[in-house]
Amino acid sequence: MFFEGSEKKLEMVINREWGSLLAMGRSFWSNVVTRAKAEILDTLSNEECDAYLLSESSLFVWHDRVVMLTCGTTTLVDAALYLLEQVPLEHIRFASFRRKNEYYAHLQKTSFMDDVNRLGLHMPGCAFRLGNLDSHHNYVFHLDKPYEPAVDNTTSELLMYHIRGENADYLCSEHQKIKHIRRLLKLEELFPGFALSDWLFEPSGYSVNAIRDNRYATIHITPQKNSSYVSFETNLDLVNSSIVPTLLKQLNPGCWDLIGFNPLLPKKVPKKVPKKVPKKVPLPEKTPYQCLSTCEIQLSCGYHMVFNHFQHPDHRKVQAENLWRAE
Amino acid sequence: MFFEGSEKKLEMVINREWGSLLAMGRSFWSNVVTRAKAEILDTLSNEECDAYLLSESSLFVWHDRVVMLTCGTTTLVDAALYLLEQVPLEHIRFASFRRKNEYYAHLQKTSFMDDVNRLGLHMPGCAFRLGNLDSHHNYVFHLDKPYEPAVDNTTSELLMYHIRGENADYLCSEHQKIKHIRRLLKLEELFPGFALSDWLFEPSGYSVNAIRDNRYATIHITPQKNSSYVSFETNLDLVNSSIVPTLLKQLNPGCWDLIGFNPLLPKKVPKKVPKKVPKKVPLPEKTPYQCLSTCEIQLSCGYHMVFNHFQHPDHRKVQAENLWRAE
Repeated sequence: MFFEGSEKKLEMVINREWGSLLAMGRSFWSNVVTRAKAEILDTLSNEECDAYLLSESSLFVWHDRVVMLTCGTTTLVDAALYLLEQVPLEHIRFASFRRKNEYYAHLQKTSFMDDVNRLGLHMPGCAFRLGNLDSHHNYVFHLDKPYEPAVDNTTSELLMYHIRGENADYLCSEHQKIKHIRRLLKLEELFPGFALSDWLFEPSGYSVNAIRDNRYATIHITPQKNSSYVSFETNLDLVNSSIVPTLLKQLNPGCWDLIGFNPLLPKKVPKKVPKKVPKKVPLPEKTPYQCLSTCEIQLSCGYHMVFNHFQHPDHRKVQAENLWRAE
Repeated sequence: MFFEGSEKKLEMVINREWGSLLAMGRSFWSNVVTRAKAEILDTLSNEECDAYLLSESSLFVWHDRVVMLTCGTTTLVDAALYLLEQVPLEHIRFASFRRKNEYYAHLQKTSFMDDVNRLGLHMPGCAFRLGNLDSHHNYVFHLDKPYEPAVDNTTSELLMYHIRGENADYLCSEHQKIKHIRRLLKLEELFPGFALSDWLFEPSGYSVNAIRDNRYATIHITPQKNSSYVSFETNLDLVNSSIVPTLLKQLNPGCWDLIGFNPLLPKKVPKKVPKKVPKKVPLPEKTPYQCLSTCEIQLSCGYHMVFNHFQHPDHRKVQAENLWRAE
């Protein structure tokens, strides 16, 4: 019983002259979600954003943009192709489709390149892999069209593998309580003023969407033993925030990725400013984790994308896993 | 144009009362090789061993044992099942079937667990994974039957990824010469007195089998850019040998695995002998490489199996790879 936690991700920004994605309403988005082979479990709304909690991950809709994440063996590319039929290409300002390397790639319905070949029939695009093929890596396909993201348009993803310790044990146990998980993840402390919508799955697994104005955060926990996975994603500025160090402390992953799109610069600029200030994803200080892989690229769609993979020294020693024994 | 270099591996030891595997002759083994969707390119023989160079890797046959490696999208499990039809289970003293995690798992005809489910119908066995699912790892299925390997029965595999430098450039270039590759790999120095049989593939790729008495060594090079792979395997004692450090120096891989079956102990035992001397795969001294993953297990078939993964510090920084662009 293995569940693929790694998310596929779709992001799209449209021209408001075409209309409002938010105004399309729940039945339209329910239709989009169905194409990906997922369903809507819960909804959260404010004036700027609708946040849908899905059977497999999340969907966030604003007037001019949409972010959709789906995991398991969902077919997010079908949802993307459906959206491309609804919004004419000239009204799409930005679009990207991404996949993380999967644990069980052979169980997926399509590969990333299969998806790219279909998307490429509907829009001019480019595709890249950040990270080596034989290590953690992230695939991105994007519309090849100039776009200028706003200054505060930043996205960060923290993907944690092999969570360990008391909190991890609780998240793998039976009879969990939402109240306890919220406390364990320090949601109220990390996301003050955010409205929350969360869900506890059977036999285990937890998802939460959080929104405040046009800001969002979402966490998905796939707690299976020996291959647990927790993803966190937000458009909040993480630089002067304690979110990443806190989540790392609470979940103590064996290894993790930090992926950034136009990550903001630290406010405290060093006195001697180097000629080219590297755009860096903010990292916790004094971390025991070691960076094993780092990769960045300036995409033609206006985003600077950064992929980093980290491992804890304790994660070096691995127990052999018993997979099968004749009865 | 991607070629999966990672080998699947079959090993079997039979009871000599059944007969001799060596005496089965070329036409029998050609038949076995065909089941795996490979073919024999070249043959090398001495009194104890026949070494077949295959279109995709190698086959070594002794009177009482066989080792077969095949890469690409070969179906080694079919060859294994065919052999199981020929030799009755009571005459099989030891059998193992292994796979490394593949670069493009979704292009393989079967997964390791698919193979295990078929093999398990023909013999009682156990299956393990050494290494984490989201990192380099090795799968092993073996006959669950006590077996006592001889003292000098040791096998080591050095699997090198992302080879770099002048020699790597040469191995990726056109118009290579066998003579130059032999020199570059220092074959005569590393394997004195061994008979060699090698093959240069088009447009690139190189394989060599080497035998001396009952000892063998084999090297397979898949030199594609950005995902090169070189495997070396032998039943020579590596402890007091310069083979591993020399190959690492000549090929300068970004990362590599060292897998050992009953690796021998260093001859120089420290003065204060610890109570339990750990069985270690011999590593080059003063290596810049860092061990990222280590896993070991005592198998019920009498082998102590060790899996280690190493990475060079320079391998941390990765260039984004351009996969696709609309024309």
